[in-house]
Amino acid sequence: MALYVLSRRSSHPSTSQFFLALRFAASYSRSYSSSSFREERDTFGPIQVPSDKLWGAQTQRSLQNFDIGGPRERMPEPIVRAFGILKKCAAKVNMEYGLDPTIGKAVMQAAQEVAEGKLNDHFPLVVWQTGSGTQSNMNANEVIANRAAEILGHRRGEKFVHPNDHVNRSQSSNDTFPTVMHIAAAMEVNSRLIPNLKTLYSTLNAKSIEFKDIVKIGRTHTQDATPLTLGQEFSGYTTQVKYGIDRVIGTLPRMYQLAQGGTAVGTGLNTKKGFDAKIAAAVAEETRLPFITAENKFEALAAHDAFVETSGALNTIAASLMKIANDIRLLGSGPRCGLGELILPENEPGSSIMPGKVNPTQCEALTMVCAQVMGNHVAITVGGSNGHFELNVFKPMIASSLLHSLRLLGDSSASFEKNCVRGIQANRERISKLLHESLMLVTSLNPKIGYDKAAAVAKTAHKEGSTLKEAALKLGVLSSEEFDNLVVPEKMIGPTD
Amino acid sequence: MALYVLSRRSSHPSTSQFFLALRFAASYSRSYSSSSFREERDTFGPIQVPSDKLWGAQTQRSLQNFDIGGPRERMPEPIVRAFGILKKCAAKVNMEYGLDPTIGKAVMQAAQEVAEGKLNDHFPLVVWQTGSGTQSNMNANEVIANRAAEILGHRRGEKFVHPNDHVNRSQSSNDTFPTVMHIAAAMEVNSRLIPNLKTLYSTLNAKSIEFKDIVKIGRTHTQDATPLTLGQEFSGYTTQVKYGIDRVIGTLPRMYQLAQGGTAVGTGLNTKKGFDAKIAAAVAEETRLPFITAENKFEALAAHDAFVETSGALNTIAASLMKIANDIRLLGSGPRCGLGELILPENEPGSSIMPGKVNPTQCEALTMVCAQVMGNHVAITVGGSNGHFELNVFKPMIASSLLHSLRLLGDSSASFEKNCVRGIQANRERISKLLHESLMLVTSLNPKIGYDKAAAVAKTAHKEGSTLKEAALKLGVLSSEEFDNLVVPEKMIGPTD
Amino acid sequence: MALYVLSRRSSHPSTSQFFLALRFAASYSRSYSSSSFREERDTFGPIQVPSDKLWGAQTQRSLQNFDIGGPRERMPEPIVRAFGILKKCAAKVNMEYGLDPTIGKAVMQAAQEVAEGKLNDHFPLVVWQTGSGTQSNMNANEVIANRAAEILGHRRGEKFVHPNDHVNRSQSSNDTFPTVMHIAAAMEVNSRLIPNLKTLYSTLNAKSIEFKDIVKIGRTHTQDATPLTLGQEFSGYTTQVKYGIDRVIGTLPRMYQLAQGGTAVGTGLNTKKGFDAKIAAAVAEETRLPFITAENKFEALAAHDAFVETSGALNTIAASLMKIANDIRLLGSGPRCGLGELILPENEPGSSIMPGKVNPTQCEALTMVCAQVMGNHVAITVGGSNGHFELNVFKPMIASSLLHSLRLLGDSSASFEKNCVRGIQANRERISKLLHESLMLVTSLNPKIGYDKAAAVAKTAHKEGSTLKEAALKLGVLSSEEFDNLVVPEKMIGPTD
Amino acid sequence: MALYVLSRRSSHPSTSQFFLALRFAASYSRSYSSSSFREERDTFGPIQVPSDKLWGAQTQRSLQNFDIGGPRERMPEPIVRAFGILKKCAAKVNMEYGLDPTIGKAVMQAAQEVAEGKLNDHFPLVVWQTGSGTQSNMNANEVIANRAAEILGHRRGEKFVHPNDHVNRSQSSNDTFPTVMHIAAAMEVNSRLIPNLKTLYSTLNAKSIEFKDIVKIGRTHTQDATPLTLGQEFSGYTTQVKYGIDRVIGTLPRMYQLAQGGTAVGTGLNTKKGFDAKIAAAVAEETRLPFITAENKFEALAAHDAFVETSGALNTIAASLMKIANDIRLLGSGPRCGLGELILPENEPGSSIMPGKVNPTQCEALTMVCAQVMGNHVAITVGGSNGHFELNVFKPMIASSLLHSLRLLGDSSASFEKNCVRGIQANRERISKLLHESLMLVTSLNPKIGYDKAAAVAKTAHKEGSTLKEAALKLGVLSSEEFDNLVVPEKMIGPTD
Repeated sequence: MALYVLSRRSSHPSTSQFFLALRFAASYSRSYSSSSFREERDTFGPIQVPSDKLWGAQTQRSLQNFDIGGPRERMPEPIVRAFGILKKCAAKVNMEYGLDPTIGKAVMQAAQEVAEGKLNDHFPLVVWQTGSGTQSNMNANEVIANRAAEILGHRRGEKFVHPNDHVNRSQSSNDTFPTVMHIAAAMEVNSRLIPNLKTLYSTLNAKSIEFKDIVKIGRTHTQDATPLTLGQEFSGYTTQVKYGIDRVIGTLPRMYQLAQGGTAVGTGLNTKKGFDAKIAAAVAEETRLPFITAENKFEALAAHDAFVETSGALNTIAASLMKIANDIRLLGSGPRCGLGELILPENEPGSSIMPGKVNPTQCEALTMVCAQVMGNHVAITVGGSNGHFELNVFKPMIASSLLHSLRLLGDSSASFEKNCVRGIQANRERISKLLHESLMLVTSLNPKIGYDKAAAVAKTAHKEGSTLKEAALKLGVLSSEEFDNLVVPEKMIGPTD
Repeated sequence: MALYVLSRRSSHPSTSQFFLALRFAASYSRSYSSSSFREERDTFGPIQVPSDKLWGAQTQRSLQNFDIGGPRERMPEPIVRAFGILKKCAAKVNMEYGLDPTIGKAVMQAAQEVAEGKLNDHFPLVVWQTGSGTQSNMNANEVIANRAAEILGHRRGEKFVHPNDHVNRSQSSNDTFPTVMHIAAAMEVNSRLIPNLKTLYSTLNAKSIEFKDIVKIGRTHTQDATPLTLGQEFSGYTTQVKYGIDRVIGTLPRMYQLAQGGTAVGTGLNTKKGFDAKIAAAVAEETRLPFITAENKFEALAAHDAFVETSGALNTIAASLMKIANDIRLLGSGPRCGLGELILPENEPGSSIMPGKVNPTQCEALTMVCAQVMGNHVAITVGGSNGHFELNVFKPMIASSLLHSLRLLGDSSASFEKNCVRGIQANRERISKLLHESLMLVTSLNPKIGYDKAAAVAKTAHKEGSTLKEAALKLGVLSSEEFDNLVVPEKMIGPTD
Repeated sequence: MALYVLSRRSSHPSTSQFFLALRFAASYSRSYSSSSFREERDTFGPIQVPSDKLWGAQTQRSLQNFDIGGPRERMPEPIVRAFGILKKCAAKVNMEYGLDPTIGKAVMQAAQEVAEGKLNDHFPLVVWQTGSGTQSNMNANEVIANRAAEILGHRRGEKFVHPNDHVNRSQSSNDTFPTVMHIAAAMEVNSRLIPNLKTLYSTLNAKSIEFKDIVKIGRTHTQDATPLTLGQEFSGYTTQVKYGIDRVIGTLPRMYQLAQGGTAVGTGLNTKKGFDAKIAAAVAEETRLPFITAENKFEALAAHDAFVETSGALNTIAASLMKIANDIRLLGSGPRCGLGELILPENEPGSSIMPGKVNPTQCEALTMVCAQVMGNHVAITVGGSNGHFELNVFKPMIASSLLHSLRLLGDSSASFEKNCVRGIQANRERISKLLHESLMLVTSLNPKIGYDKAAAVAKTAHKEGSTLKEAALKLGVLSSEEFDNLVVPEKMIGPTD
Repeated sequence: MALYVLSRRSSHPSTSQFFLALRFAASYSRSYSSSSFREERDTFGPIQVPSDKLWGAQTQRSLQNFDIGGPRERMPEPIVRAFGILKKCAAKVNMEYGLDPTIGKAVMQAAQEVAEGKLNDHFPLVVWQTGSGTQSNMNANEVIANRAAEILGHRRGEKFVHPNDHVNRSQSSNDTFPTVMHIAAAMEVNSRLIPNLKTLYSTLNAKSIEFKDIVKIGRTHTQDATPLTLGQEFSGYTTQVKYGIDRVIGTLPRMYQLAQGGTAVGTGLNTKKGFDAKIAAAVAEETRLPFITAENKFEALAAHDAFVETSGALNTIAASLMKIANDIRLLGSGPRCGLGELILPENEPGSSIMPGKVNPTQCEALTMVCAQVMGNHVAITVGGSNGHFELNVFKPMIASSLLHSLRLLGDSSASFEKNCVRGIQANRERISKLLHESLMLVTSLNPKIGYDKAAAVAKTAHKEGSTLKEAALKLGVLSSEEFDNLVVPEKMIGPTD
């Protein structure tokens, strides 16, 4: 509760000087001064920590040293939860290697609470901190240690359960943070993105089937072209989404590789042989995802190519969805002065007085998301390319940006499916009108009356603004029946036998 | 308070099924169900709104239709505050054009509260909504109308003060949203970014002066090169930051142009002549920034080139800061096996047992910010290039991404200045040792002993791992005194007379 | 001549194995083996150089060591020409500082030939070489030295005129290359980009005036909106281009700063005081552009923020032109099934049989250019942010990418203006038809018949697919004359008095 | 030959007015005026074409209408060759469907010449043309038709073999251009990129083995960390490259899908059933790559997600190579004032007088390429996301940018392997010195003398600038032998049993 209330408090300036007021972040850490405090310590010395918080000295220091961006820049929740999963698994494996079971079990229980999001309030650190994510790892260690100590009947800050010796045992920030990055991303891909893309795929596919008999004008170069069915047009979108799912799935083999066990530089110093594989197995069991230990721990710490790669898949999906949403809003443009082939569902007031003006707001939200995903991809690429030696220190930014993209793409795909695609109707009358007014159908006359006469029909129609049929009749090259027998758009939508 | 508490509540799943738990956003709107409700209406019909909230029907609909990203994706606070400023000014000007003063004054008072951030809790909408920002405009209209009604002794939802007829009078979402975008961005530039960059500039400049007599080895291609002073090296950074300030200031003339008065398509339909200029003047007075009415309202609605441009300036600043922070961490690398020329301040525990290992965490936070700013720039560019006809509908994303970049760059510049640059010390001993071990000084011997002998000295030193002086003495080409008289790095740091 | 002939030769594989054939670049340097050779030397030893080429040993080595991309990746011509200008100016200034006038004048004459593009064949090096551009600087030194020697009656390779001692006197690659980058970019901006943008601006402005009385339907969210004139719509484009010119001009003050005089690390070692200012003045005189010596040479070598900045301006222009070209192709879509408000000039065959199908090919070329410019901007940003210590070593890439963007934007603006914008005609009939079919005009009825009846009229028209007028008459709320008096789109295109 | 000679000719201005001279492109098409001409015709009418060129009217028109970028912007050679392959296969399949075998065989022979690069001079069109690549398709049709006619004893321009009716039979630009895009890209991936990456992988792997026993200091946050072997460090690079190969291979299934058979809008109008699969099979046979017909032709024309995806893989490879090359140049920094752990091969003169200054020029070329690849990726993404309806009209840009990235990455990987990685030597002496000076080894003393004494040793060493051993002896906590027995970096490079 604290954060939110405090942000309200600090944002009640009694002055109209907006500039000062805007700086509410500056007082972010100080705003905890209203609480009572306890003393926590690290090798740097003692520091005051709010009594109602489980975090310790290193978290508190980071809070004070990195006053960047305010509360909305906090480490994303999936990372916090993944820390819970990892620390639980680490305690479990460490017990096999000699960790006191009393302490181990308490750590597991506390970590489970983190994994469930119950202790989110105790993870106040922002993304813009140490590039290794060390401070968030210590945040997890401190919170879990204090909570485990409480479970065992001890007090916060006493270090009955020690953040380093117990919770972080056999671990280093340098291997835990990339591990939670992979856990969080793989879970978001599997639990949010892919299910939502699959639903979108199904609904587009259903529309493609629903519209399979609606013949419409094709458009290339934004110009009238030969016809196709509306179902065929939607089948293109369907295929794009299907391949998008394949693309992101194709990146998972490298995302399932966990760095844990590499410790500080990838060698695994201070771990026992087999620790890495056991941890990966425990995480796999806990999450029911096929995590394995990374084939090469040096790569796993020093680079985040797996994130650049997955982001590349999201970037491709964004390009696909941008195309689809753009088409849908243009095909739905109107009601009178646009293309008007699609009728989009109306979810909110458009114009109060003008019926039929349905703003394609879901397309707008989705295309904005796509632009942001393309931008995040560049951020991730820049971060991913800038590692030095044994460690890439753009970890929190890379994690945060990818999780941002995953969340936005997943949620907006769901919203777009539910609030737009599902309700799209074909404006059959309009589609038919446009198709039959088109001059593109003139090609059908070629075999019967020859190229020259066909061209003359088209030119006449274009010049006079008439239909092809009117022009053909006027020029006397065909009877009405002949025209109708020849010009059958339904025969123009596929190859011939 | 609601949001935060509710997010805690909804995030206490009793199950270990993380996937489900992760979907806390899905229950975001539903989570309001714990409150009591009142009915609000729009042209779409009635809808239930939490009793303790000031927003109305259109806000509530958007909340339900755009379940994308969760609370951390809410419209940035500077936008909310800018809405307060704008609506206050609009009421003031509208009174000149006939708005009932009783209502006008209440609207002004309510809008002032929004401008001060007092009503932030009542702005729940996310960035990923209608691309014109209509729903956030309506959110502002609804909140201010309900609050103004309360001020006048009426109840929420009664529309004694009307969101459209009174608060949004003579306005359209299509001109208000770009107007608040410009207000918010210009304020953040002036109140956060520039002051922080100026402080960073001053501190870098002070360091440049402090270090002006410390001669050190230069490095080009990461290889040893001719010497310069540490002060000269820092003067390069100083200049980069100074030009960065110039760059962003250079974009402001177009940022100060306000779209207000263009209404729906830029023509100003439903406004009176002069309304646009009066609004701009009122905003200028309120913010003490030189806002003017946009020269061309069609451009101001249909494009956001001013945002792409300002983002370009931020992108350049990000490139500058990336270079500076990278240099500083490499010059501070060590303590034993790096370059070790700079001693960075120690703000948090590095290694408990190993003194001198100071992780350049502020450099890391800053360079992560720079990568994100580069990414946001691409998002803004993509959004900016995708307008159609009379309206660009990537407005909320463009606004949010630029404000994100401004906030991050401003805050991280301040953090970097305060927690890193200010405390940088030169490791004079190390600098001197490296300089004098360098072989680059051999060029000083040329005039005296000729190119061939000088080259022989260097080759001997390189082969034997000795210093130049040792090699020169060994080869017998110079006496110790001669060497010391000739090899004076202090004479190598500028052009000759 | 050589390159092209040789590329033909090497691309005549007698086999159908395309893979091998594709590797024609691999034989690129070897392909010179057909010529006769002379020996050139550098500190690395002797090397064979084609007799008919003026370049020397270091160029030849680079050719062999950087077999990347083939001939189309050669250093852009504006860089080669700028080397000519710089070396001419350097010789002129060096004569003031004691360079033998006989040699100095010959160097000036040879450099002039380079500046005029006469010796382009002798600059074979690709962009992908040393990141300081050293090899291209040596290429210029070698070619000019050999050519100057020939002018003075000596033979190539004899070093009567010395590439380093004479042509490169008082210079380093580290200051010459950034200097030619700035010269080349500033010249391209002034000679190609700005003039072409100005012409585009003028033509758009002329169209805006030509179309000032054509009232048309507005479109927001791609949906029908209130009317504006076609001239107003074009005035938005005009303003975008005008501001684009302002934007790029705003970056020039930093582009006019020349690094020359900084030598290897920015200190100016091995130059005389005043050399830097004299060189800048000479370049200014030669190019008639206001070049000055860089305020801080350390920044000028170690960063290329000026290029990132100018690229940012080009990126904004690309976003603007993308919007404009997109609008024009959509407004010109049809001929029957699109919006059809604009008639674009027909420059090449579209469909042979279907009149009126005019593909917006100039829009397509321009928007492709815009996408590439956005991409190059990211490349420049990444390169610009990755400098180390005293030198940024992404120079050739940064230069090449910016010059690429400048050339493409300049040329495509000219092509777009000449082959598209200039010939755009308004399809007045279609514009009028759409406008009068629109339901948006219903708002005009409000004052006369009230909101409810007006809404009923609109709903009837929407439901029955009739015009507003037909619906109004049917409902009996207005007479035909009354309708015509009320519904006057021409009165809806601005604020009221 | 013409192009190059002409470019020389047009670049001999007798004036020093560089601006005019720079516009050599403006006279590009006119420069053909020196040749004799023949008349060619299309539906637009007659046009003069240089007699010695095989192209026809539509090519000539494009040349005049798209004067953008000059000769270096010509359609990349792999596209031209792929047109040869496709047109050969099309003729072969068309003969099965009734094309006159005499004509068909001549077309196949002419197309084979195009595929072999023999007719490159006859493909003058630039990338910046119609967005469907129609003009390049017509260029191929015209050249092949004229060449086939010549083979059959007819004259150019007579249309004995018809560009449309014979060469383009059953095809549309809209399906041929995406088909050649896929052929060209897949061939470049298989013939250039993957082999060169594999060689780079092998050499890195060999280095990793060669260096497996060299223990060195690790570095995290650019600070001294626990040791690892140089071989382990290189194993990280090896893994990055290996995964890079996997990544690009993972994108090929969608790249192998050919659009051919979709004709104008994806329906396959004007083809026979089975034509699409036969064409794909013929191309597969011709190229020995597993091309198949695209599952959905609508997607294949309207989107280029496969290119965005493959570009994403290249972007990831670029991020990997940027990291590797950056590490290598920093590890090779020196010779005296850097890290100096690696000795890079010397390929060209660095400093004439200073031995050991070896500029990491191959790293520089490679990292510049990486930056450009990242930029091209954004261009491709923007282009890929901007399709409309049945056709994406950013095709030539997308193709050109991807082929650019493929060529640059392939060539620079080869150059980097050959001229840098292969020759890297470990500076064993320096590595050992740094390792043993490091304070990180103090952790080894913990078990023996306890944390407090170990920390005291480290602090003493840090304060006095001595080694750990010297400090330990000075403090009298250990004997020399004890120290040497305890501090064994070789035992710190992996987990314990």
